[in-house]
Amino acid sequence: MSELFDPVLAAGAVRDEVSDAAWLRALLDVEAALAAAGADAGVVPREHADRIAEVCREGYFDTAELGMKSVGVGNPAAPLVREVTAKVGGEAARFVHFGATSQDVMDSAAMLLAARAREPLLEDLGAAADRLAGLAREHIGTVQPGRTLLQQALPVTFGLTAASWLSGVDGATTALRKLVFAAQLGGATGTLASLGEAGPALLAAFSARLGLAEPVLPWHTERGRIAEIAGVLGRVCGVIGGTARTITLLAQTEVAELSERGPEGAGGSSTMPHKRNPVAAVAAQAAAAQAPGLVATLLAAMPQEYQRAAGAWHAEWRPFTGLFRCAGSAAYWLRTSLERLEVDEARMRANLDATGGAVLSERVTTELAEDTGRLAAHDAVTACTARALAGEGELTELLAGDPLVGGRLSREEIERLLDPADYLGSAREFVERALAAHDERRAGL
Amino acid sequence: MSELFDPVLAAGAVRDEVSDAAWLRALLDVEAALAAAGADAGVVPREHADRIAEVCREGYFDTAELGMKSVGVGNPAAPLVREVTAKVGGEAARFVHFGATSQDVMDSAAMLLAARAREPLLEDLGAAADRLAGLAREHIGTVQPGRTLLQQALPVTFGLTAASWLSGVDGATTALRKLVFAAQLGGATGTLASLGEAGPALLAAFSARLGLAEPVLPWHTERGRIAEIAGVLGRVCGVIGGTARTITLLAQTEVAELSERGPEGAGGSSTMPHKRNPVAAVAAQAAAAQAPGLVATLLAAMPQEYQRAAGAWHAEWRPFTGLFRCAGSAAYWLRTSLERLEVDEARMRANLDATGGAVLSERVTTELAEDTGRLAAHDAVTACTARALAGEGELTELLAGDPLVGGRLSREEIERLLDPADYLGSAREFVERALAAHDERRAGL
Amino acid sequence: MSELFDPVLAAGAVRDEVSDAAWLRALLDVEAALAAAGADAGVVPREHADRIAEVCREGYFDTAELGMKSVGVGNPAAPLVREVTAKVGGEAARFVHFGATSQDVMDSAAMLLAARAREPLLEDLGAAADRLAGLAREHIGTVQPGRTLLQQALPVTFGLTAASWLSGVDGATTALRKLVFAAQLGGATGTLASLGEAGPALLAAFSARLGLAEPVLPWHTERGRIAEIAGVLGRVCGVIGGTARTITLLAQTEVAELSERGPEGAGGSSTMPHKRNPVAAVAAQAAAAQAPGLVATLLAAMPQEYQRAAGAWHAEWRPFTGLFRCAGSAAYWLRTSLERLEVDEARMRANLDATGGAVLSERVTTELAEDTGRLAAHDAVTACTARALAGEGELTELLAGDPLVGGRLSREEIERLLDPADYLGSAREFVERALAAHDERRAGL
Amino acid sequence: MSELFDPVLAAGAVRDEVSDAAWLRALLDVEAALAAAGADAGVVPREHADRIAEVCREGYFDTAELGMKSVGVGNPAAPLVREVTAKVGGEAARFVHFGATSQDVMDSAAMLLAARAREPLLEDLGAAADRLAGLAREHIGTVQPGRTLLQQALPVTFGLTAASWLSGVDGATTALRKLVFAAQLGGATGTLASLGEAGPALLAAFSARLGLAEPVLPWHTERGRIAEIAGVLGRVCGVIGGTARTITLLAQTEVAELSERGPEGAGGSSTMPHKRNPVAAVAAQAAAAQAPGLVATLLAAMPQEYQRAAGAWHAEWRPFTGLFRCAGSAAYWLRTSLERLEVDEARMRANLDATGGAVLSERVTTELAEDTGRLAAHDAVTACTARALAGEGELTELLAGDPLVGGRLSREEIERLLDPADYLGSAREFVERALAAHDERRAGL
Repeated sequence: MSELFDPVLAAGAVRDEVSDAAWLRALLDVEAALAAAGADAGVVPREHADRIAEVCREGYFDTAELGMKSVGVGNPAAPLVREVTAKVGGEAARFVHFGATSQDVMDSAAMLLAARAREPLLEDLGAAADRLAGLAREHIGTVQPGRTLLQQALPVTFGLTAASWLSGVDGATTALRKLVFAAQLGGATGTLASLGEAGPALLAAFSARLGLAEPVLPWHTERGRIAEIAGVLGRVCGVIGGTARTITLLAQTEVAELSERGPEGAGGSSTMPHKRNPVAAVAAQAAAAQAPGLVATLLAAMPQEYQRAAGAWHAEWRPFTGLFRCAGSAAYWLRTSLERLEVDEARMRANLDATGGAVLSERVTTELAEDTGRLAAHDAVTACTARALAGEGELTELLAGDPLVGGRLSREEIERLLDPADYLGSAREFVERALAAHDERRAGL
Repeated sequence: MSELFDPVLAAGAVRDEVSDAAWLRALLDVEAALAAAGADAGVVPREHADRIAEVCREGYFDTAELGMKSVGVGNPAAPLVREVTAKVGGEAARFVHFGATSQDVMDSAAMLLAARAREPLLEDLGAAADRLAGLAREHIGTVQPGRTLLQQALPVTFGLTAASWLSGVDGATTALRKLVFAAQLGGATGTLASLGEAGPALLAAFSARLGLAEPVLPWHTERGRIAEIAGVLGRVCGVIGGTARTITLLAQTEVAELSERGPEGAGGSSTMPHKRNPVAAVAAQAAAAQAPGLVATLLAAMPQEYQRAAGAWHAEWRPFTGLFRCAGSAAYWLRTSLERLEVDEARMRANLDATGGAVLSERVTTELAEDTGRLAAHDAVTACTARALAGEGELTELLAGDPLVGGRLSREEIERLLDPADYLGSAREFVERALAAHDERRAGL
Repeated sequence: MSELFDPVLAAGAVRDEVSDAAWLRALLDVEAALAAAGADAGVVPREHADRIAEVCREGYFDTAELGMKSVGVGNPAAPLVREVTAKVGGEAARFVHFGATSQDVMDSAAMLLAARAREPLLEDLGAAADRLAGLAREHIGTVQPGRTLLQQALPVTFGLTAASWLSGVDGATTALRKLVFAAQLGGATGTLASLGEAGPALLAAFSARLGLAEPVLPWHTERGRIAEIAGVLGRVCGVIGGTARTITLLAQTEVAELSERGPEGAGGSSTMPHKRNPVAAVAAQAAAAQAPGLVATLLAAMPQEYQRAAGAWHAEWRPFTGLFRCAGSAAYWLRTSLERLEVDEARMRANLDATGGAVLSERVTTELAEDTGRLAAHDAVTACTARALAGEGELTELLAGDPLVGGRLSREEIERLLDPADYLGSAREFVERALAAHDERRAGL
Repeated sequence: MSELFDPVLAAGAVRDEVSDAAWLRALLDVEAALAAAGADAGVVPREHADRIAEVCREGYFDTAELGMKSVGVGNPAAPLVREVTAKVGGEAARFVHFGATSQDVMDSAAMLLAARAREPLLEDLGAAADRLAGLAREHIGTVQPGRTLLQQALPVTFGLTAASWLSGVDGATTALRKLVFAAQLGGATGTLASLGEAGPALLAAFSARLGLAEPVLPWHTERGRIAEIAGVLGRVCGVIGGTARTITLLAQTEVAELSERGPEGAGGSSTMPHKRNPVAAVAAQAAAAQAPGLVATLLAAMPQEYQRAAGAWHAEWRPFTGLFRCAGSAAYWLRTSLERLEVDEARMRANLDATGGAVLSERVTTELAEDTGRLAAHDAVTACTARALAGEGELTELLAGDPLVGGRLSREEIERLLDPADYLGSAREFVERALAAHDERRAGL
């Protein structure tokens, strides 16, 4: 968390859901739920549970002080429990944190945090997807150069480009939505020993009260859940990074098919007023680029020993929080970039024409080859293409004037063969499929 | 692939499913399926499709030569297409690779490979899980020290330890099993332009013939699928790494609760005959440790530009293959380690007793506190514990002899309170839940 | 930065050197130095430079406000320049940020930050190394089990163990100390165009005033320097992580050769009073474990396009700062752990004896083999060792009583051969070499 | 190692230096050097050492068989020692591997490998640097658009672009050249116990004979050396990746300032003959992109326990070898790309002119501002620029015709201000500095 950098590097509403305040809130919610579940299970008197919940709901706790007091034991749950116990006082104090260990509280709070942070993340991803669906629909017929290895290749439509991005965002969003966050409760070594017979009942009530899934057994050192969350957030970031990268490429001065029209001051350069920097797409990439390293850190922390790891568990907190922050920022900036996006259809067409039909000359070759054989066709067409690129005339003219080509294909046929709009294959159908899939997802919510 | 290192670092049957030969097989299967699908869709004469399939099935292709010829274009699919075309000859030659681009073939082959490599991976994971289920069942009552931050804490059972490992393996296995692998087919820029109207029909037939899912639209630069596979394999490796790490810790000379009884020569030290190295668990960890970096490489390669990436796509091949290899090796070695595992129940109990009941002294405190107040109870018990650890006597005796403790608790009560088998909470139920979940998974296959 | 987690995860004095306040200070120092260098080079009137320096030194700037204003352009240097300009006012205002671009200021500030953060990092590493040197010297003759693959092997001394750790810390420290931090100044595209002829002179003066090295040419997209810093900090963390891991292993309940005696409350467990958690070593590992992912993020951000990268540059800020924070925390906690360390020499010896001399039985075999041939010697010794481990007697007795062994070796010879202190090879000399190298380093400062 | 993929993904001469054959060669060289050093130190009869060296030099060993036999113990050095011992036979056999442990041999062999693989890597980097120096010199006056965030900004020269790349390659090369590779020799637990007093002398001789540095003490679990190598190779790859990325961007159809003119078949597209794919730069990026993950794996493996790690050491072999392979491939492909590079000076100029002088309009503003105040100047110039970009005329004309601008600046002055060649600041001097630094490095070899 940084006042100086977060507005760019941790933008959007996810940040606040993984802040110190959010952690504190989640830790207190967990303690309250634990007490209430204890009452549900009959091991904590209800009035004491209520008293504990009241303190957790209304008490003032100082995150800086808790942080400093966590140094001795290594996590902030322990000093928080002491604070809560002191504030609760009386008979009820004995039932604070009843049966739990610090990791129960930390892990359950982390899952609560994840569930809460997912909401604004889904919100931004959903808005981005809807905007992409709009672009795909609107530009289903807008011809654009396709590019492979950064070279112009066969034409596509910008609608197809947007539909491909949509498909990526929707796929990642679905995976995010499917994530199930589980409660953690096992006591010191995962046996819930101090709860006697009441363990399973309390675990069920505790999970239900937190709105988290009930695990089959405690997962103090079985971190598959963390890996799963990390993998999905990594995918979210990667998909965003890819879309943002192509946006910045399409916004290049020399390409100029897209631009971000930001609010006053956004993307402008004070010293170079002609520039229109796609700052939102740039910031989306910067955020997304954090993910692979953070995912690797969480995966590398998976080997956790025995019943509680000496270091690997503590190593999770920062990348776990960080991954949500950067996914949130990436999604926010992608959404923002898409909302600012201006599409220059004329430039898309002009860029395609700039190669003088060369990208479609293959089509002429294929047509001709049926008649003349592939080799002769290829040679004739390649020669005309080279002359066109060298500025000796328009490709249509040169082909029509070529004895081999012109003798077999009419000018009209040549024009049709070189028309990008006539050579889009299944582009329209693919866009429609992606839109239908998107609508289905939307309807399923 | 290395003759020298693979037997340790890439053990098991997965290796062969991602070898050069397996890639070649998959590439040829894709070309054959493409031709057959073309016939299904009515754009390739059936006899030509059959001829192509025959060549793909029976022709000899030299991987080294293909590799060398791939240098000009950057991937091995292109020279393979030329070779197949040459071998097919005649009219049918025109229909080789019909409508496809190199990436279609490479990506579809990679998905075939993934589907095929998953089988032996599931096999090893399943065997490991079954063995863990057996251990959990057998040792449901075997008391063992629980350990947190590498310090002895409250007792657990080895059954619970094994059930926790089982739960991790089963969770990762389920995720692996759920992965859906999709075909790739889009032609040069994802429009299937050269197929005219036949694109969608051919795509459907192509996917079906390969046994792969049909994608909504081509995913040449939308790499969410790769990220998903990477994330799951990373989780598989992390779960294995964690289990293997704790096995090596339990096999320490000073702990000695587990050991690997390998075949002649395995784990022995030529110069130190008393050593029993847990080599299988060591090799499992070495393999699993490759995963976080490989996953990060695949995630970092997700931002792929336009319709085909200039480098990021090529950057996937090695870590994609590598991730399967190391997951396969990790699973093989975990299974092997578990099959070799010997459990020393007596040592587990002895280790627990070595702290003279100190791990359970808390129980006495709790019992006492009801009567004397927490502070007095804590002080009395701590004093006795310190004396016991200093060798001044057995803890039971010292507690019974303490005026505060002995005055309130009988020797029998003290013995019961200090008995680890009496303080296992929900351990048995958790094991049963994990076994039931495992059985359910097995039944669902 | 997190009040709740930083006391554990970002402990020590480095944190404050990379805080928002430190960034602001560095950015302002850079602007002041730039103006002063402009005066040195004759392109900025000295009085204006002085006025600018005064504002940079004494003006109040709000990091939160700067952060919010950075959203439009993507970095905090741009709004800061506007603020400084406004505060300077008058004629001098024209010379604020003269000739520079935002990245010049951000990169130079980052290098200043690095230079400043290195000081407390070196301080903690130096203290840790001195403590290790002390331990190595003190325990140069303290026999301890050597352990390979977590199994007891031939004896070492704890002095040698500490000397090996010392060597690692010293090596990483030397690499850290050798890092050279360079200024950045190139203007919009690295040509210093607006400075006319004065560019090189101003660059030299600017670098000198900041105490940074003068680069040959601007390095806006040549990030080798960042990679170098990242690599060294990664090494620092890895070395610490390794030392801390072995400390936690040596502190295991069953090994107990080391323990951390922390201040009141540190490492104790409220519910398990007998536990002595090595919390400092645990926290050191948690911090160190962040490094590989952060280094990977910085390396993956190295490919930066053209004259300023669209995203990859922005992607550096967080991991760059984060790497210093985690290296600082790791070094602080390692130092703390070492300061708290208690060495149990008796336990070291007892652990070695627990295998009843088995680790040295190889020695008897070797001695005997000269006479009886290897095979016979091996069989005889192995049989005795097995009986000793099975509790049938002390190994010395059993060997002396064996016809083959006892017939050739006297009891005194057998005792000497089984004495770990007699079989330490070059351990003492290696310790002395490491200490000499350490003293040399110290003297060279 | 893959016949199918290596020609693209592991190109160049480094690959063979880290192959199975190279590992075997290095392992045998280490055993030979060990025996010879034993003779030097007086603990091995010279004739036996000679016999061992002869077998190591001339014996045939099967890597596949060694690999299979390594499974029991976990590394290939152990079975190799057995094979060598068997081949040596007689009295000399006792002195094979004398005093060493498997890790001594593996680590020393890895360092030999590193030293040998560095040579062709330096060769390719040197050739790339020389080519870059040539380009920088040749194009010291070739004007090119500077680009920031992918938008055209102030002009640079292509010479400066090349000089910046040169500086990056030279910096990484220097770091690579400075790496010192150390021998490893410690015996089972790092004490060289079985060598008695002879340890240090043998270590010195052993290191000298291998041409490796002598370490202060064994570094079995102190992996700072591995981290250092990893960091430098990561930097090498990052620098190459950055250069290659910008090359591919400059080769875009719409930019077309650079192209790779490959040999027949390289970079051509069979279906799209007009394409000129920069395949070498693409392959360089694909190789370079492997590095961050591999470096992270090696850094994450640094925490190695006790005297030999249970898994983390074994985890090094693959990424260590892999890092050399990908650095070698990246360097080979960068060199190849640069050798194929064609520079289109006219296009560079044309791209700059395509924005109609807008990139330099700031200059007019600055000139004018002295007279009219910044605001009025900015408004007038911005208006003219907008009209020029809208196609209403040439910027020079529009400015000359503007009352505010034309009234104060002559057409000649305006033309000069808008001339990119007149606004290159220190570009030439920076190029000369980079060339001088390069020459100095070359001379220092």
